[in-house]
Amino acid sequence: MSDPSRSSTAAEWTTRDADVVWHGFTQMSVYAQNEPVIVDHAVGHHLVDVDGKRYLDAISSLWVNTMGHVEPELTAAAHAQLDRVAHSTMLGNGNRATIEFAERLAEIVPVEQAHILFASDGAAAVEQALKIAFQFWFNQGIHSRTSYLALGDAYHGDTVGSLALGAGGFGTELFDTLRFPVSRTPGYADPDWAEKAVRALTEYGDSLAAVILEPLVQGASGILVAEPADVRQFVETAQGFGIPVICDEVATGFGRTGAMFASEICAIRPDIMVLGKGIAAGYIPLSATVVANRVYETFLGEDLGERTFYHGHSFSGHALGCAVGLRHLELFVERDILSNVALSADHLTRRLDKDIAPLGPVAAVRQQGLMVGVELRATGDGSLTAGLAARRVCAEAVRRGVLLRPLGAVVVIMTPLSFDTTELDEVVDTLADSIAAVFETESA
Amino acid sequence: MSDPSRSSTAAEWTTRDADVVWHGFTQMSVYAQNEPVIVDHAVGHHLVDVDGKRYLDAISSLWVNTMGHVEPELTAAAHAQLDRVAHSTMLGNGNRATIEFAERLAEIVPVEQAHILFASDGAAAVEQALKIAFQFWFNQGIHSRTSYLALGDAYHGDTVGSLALGAGGFGTELFDTLRFPVSRTPGYADPDWAEKAVRALTEYGDSLAAVILEPLVQGASGILVAEPADVRQFVETAQGFGIPVICDEVATGFGRTGAMFASEICAIRPDIMVLGKGIAAGYIPLSATVVANRVYETFLGEDLGERTFYHGHSFSGHALGCAVGLRHLELFVERDILSNVALSADHLTRRLDKDIAPLGPVAAVRQQGLMVGVELRATGDGSLTAGLAARRVCAEAVRRGVLLRPLGAVVVIMTPLSFDTTELDEVVDTLADSIAAVFETESA
Repeated sequence: MSDPSRSSTAAEWTTRDADVVWHGFTQMSVYAQNEPVIVDHAVGHHLVDVDGKRYLDAISSLWVNTMGHVEPELTAAAHAQLDRVAHSTMLGNGNRATIEFAERLAEIVPVEQAHILFASDGAAAVEQALKIAFQFWFNQGIHSRTSYLALGDAYHGDTVGSLALGAGGFGTELFDTLRFPVSRTPGYADPDWAEKAVRALTEYGDSLAAVILEPLVQGASGILVAEPADVRQFVETAQGFGIPVICDEVATGFGRTGAMFASEICAIRPDIMVLGKGIAAGYIPLSATVVANRVYETFLGEDLGERTFYHGHSFSGHALGCAVGLRHLELFVERDILSNVALSADHLTRRLDKDIAPLGPVAAVRQQGLMVGVELRATGDGSLTAGLAARRVCAEAVRRGVLLRPLGAVVVIMTPLSFDTTELDEVVDTLADSIAAVFETESA
Repeated sequence: MSDPSRSSTAAEWTTRDADVVWHGFTQMSVYAQNEPVIVDHAVGHHLVDVDGKRYLDAISSLWVNTMGHVEPELTAAAHAQLDRVAHSTMLGNGNRATIEFAERLAEIVPVEQAHILFASDGAAAVEQALKIAFQFWFNQGIHSRTSYLALGDAYHGDTVGSLALGAGGFGTELFDTLRFPVSRTPGYADPDWAEKAVRALTEYGDSLAAVILEPLVQGASGILVAEPADVRQFVETAQGFGIPVICDEVATGFGRTGAMFASEICAIRPDIMVLGKGIAAGYIPLSATVVANRVYETFLGEDLGERTFYHGHSFSGHALGCAVGLRHLELFVERDILSNVALSADHLTRRLDKDIAPLGPVAAVRQQGLMVGVELRATGDGSLTAGLAARRVCAEAVRRGVLLRPLGAVVVIMTPLSFDTTELDEVVDTLADSIAAVFETESA
């Protein structure tokens, strides 16, 4: 069974997969039945499965891919760095590729005189952020600020600290005894969230080490979109109180929202920004905690002293990831990627308004840039909950060659930034067809 | 200042580095003064800095590199996978490279019918382990087992959950209010640790979700080595009580200790094993939580149901990392790497016994396979603490072209598995010279 060189059908690969690979956020008892796509290779915007079938990657391999797969320039940068060195440690030493990428990144993030601590998983970068904000106060001799203010519906990752900052959901309440307590105020689903968040700052302000938010878009909770002015009001109020603001841009960073960073649309300057997913175009596991100088400088002190941040992941500053990340930033400029995002987002808006939003099974369409959530209803005959309907719709889309995945009752469309209008049309048309197929009894 | 293409001296690169890159476990106020090595590229076992100076990598780029840098076979595997696809999501879908590596890995881990959940940072894989053990009980309707038993001097990573399982140290007590409480029993520094650990099991057993340990070697606390029989006694007692045992082999895995996994030397079969660092030869950020079937099967249930493990990192199952990981496992066999480790470890033992252990400034030499800790004393004139002496000794070694880094008062030698005896001799000779240079006033 384990001769990996033999050819095999998708069904056989699926069985082998289910035997040994545990897939995240996936009920493994039904994994194989749900007809997973087993990827063999990719060509640009298409994933190709082990049977040679092609799928348009309309979820960017879960929100990470920005410019398509095996993109020649990015791949060339990766090849070149692999031939130099893949990784050398950041503990007390440096790497030219890391420096070059960090310099370029520091120039474009809306963070004052940025200092960048790298990790590999986005959740690890969130953990770095929350610990840095916590120690920021200790380093100034203030030991009373040990709590956080976070939003309802927030998602910041799955490690215990990230989970504590998140609002729960996905049945993660079972881990409550592991989580440190966090003050919470409603998220973007509440139109009055900003006003309430500002009130919460007044109430909890003195106890807070930091405030954390996903600026502009709460992605994992179903693409909930805020008004930029509301985000700005909340962030600037917190900063007015001297509380560091952590902006988790793991999902929103690198062009997804229409700007390079959602913080720019909100006209805010975070004290700490967390980046991941698309930071190296979705090719290499890389994440970063970007820290403003006013926070960073409190960590400077005597050698081996207690102001030091005693935290560091093995692959921090990974040279290969940084080399791809650098070429990626260059391509944003060379190809004027953000202009394409603006055009694509407008095109998507028109198509969604015309062909998706009016559909009976569609409860809501939410969009910010190239982040789209299409929320479905349960079937009218009660045979499918909204969540199951969303799953069926995505399965129909996959059968039609477009890879989609639901988040609860929400079908997420999150294409690479480089899709053209023909590809966007294929996604929308396929979604419309798939909704019709699942809800066909409705229209009969 | 930020034209990355210009040539530059190491000093200039160091300044640029210190301006934007935050290095883990490093006091940045003195980073530049401590003459960091700024790596430009690598050739086999040598890192080459931006001035062209070569350094023998005697710390395996912090315990991750196993077979040298830019190793032709590993690099070829990486190039080939890059041209297929670097990454596609594991959320509900699969990838051939991931399956092939997981199958091979499952065959060799001492874990019953292994299921493998991947992540990128080792700490994230520890978090997966602790949450899986926790939910294991909930999935069986048992809500009273919410604590952990961990060892003194333990280190499991820097994220909040990993930090909670660790014993502190490095001044991390300031984060205590973020950590969930953990029962603790002495680590390997105490010769009676196993007996005490077994007693702790009797005392805390009913409240425990899991036991966690670094089998055989506690690395980050200074290469503390246990008797295999003691480890086995503790682990089997816990398993006899039905408590899942998590073996954190992030540092010990993939040949470092003399066997493929330290658990094999201890003749134990963990319920959950955590792997990282060398899993993909130190080239790509990859980590894994390996779970025995008896734990895994409690997570099987209805689709979208509460038994599901709602946890997943973006780059889980990273195809590029898995492709390198697979070739890496093949090379272990093709090159009989473990035999070389045995020969090298014996050679190191002889050299350390003869030329390092007898030195006055050396308080202790500890070794397991190719993991070595040389603990220094303070200088006799009191001018340097043991910790500062260790730092000075490593700086002297770096000046002599051998990259070493201290852990407190301990100089760690952790060479790639592929070093030959000439290279090992160079490390030992350089260490002896460096100790003599720092302690020269002693011998005068």
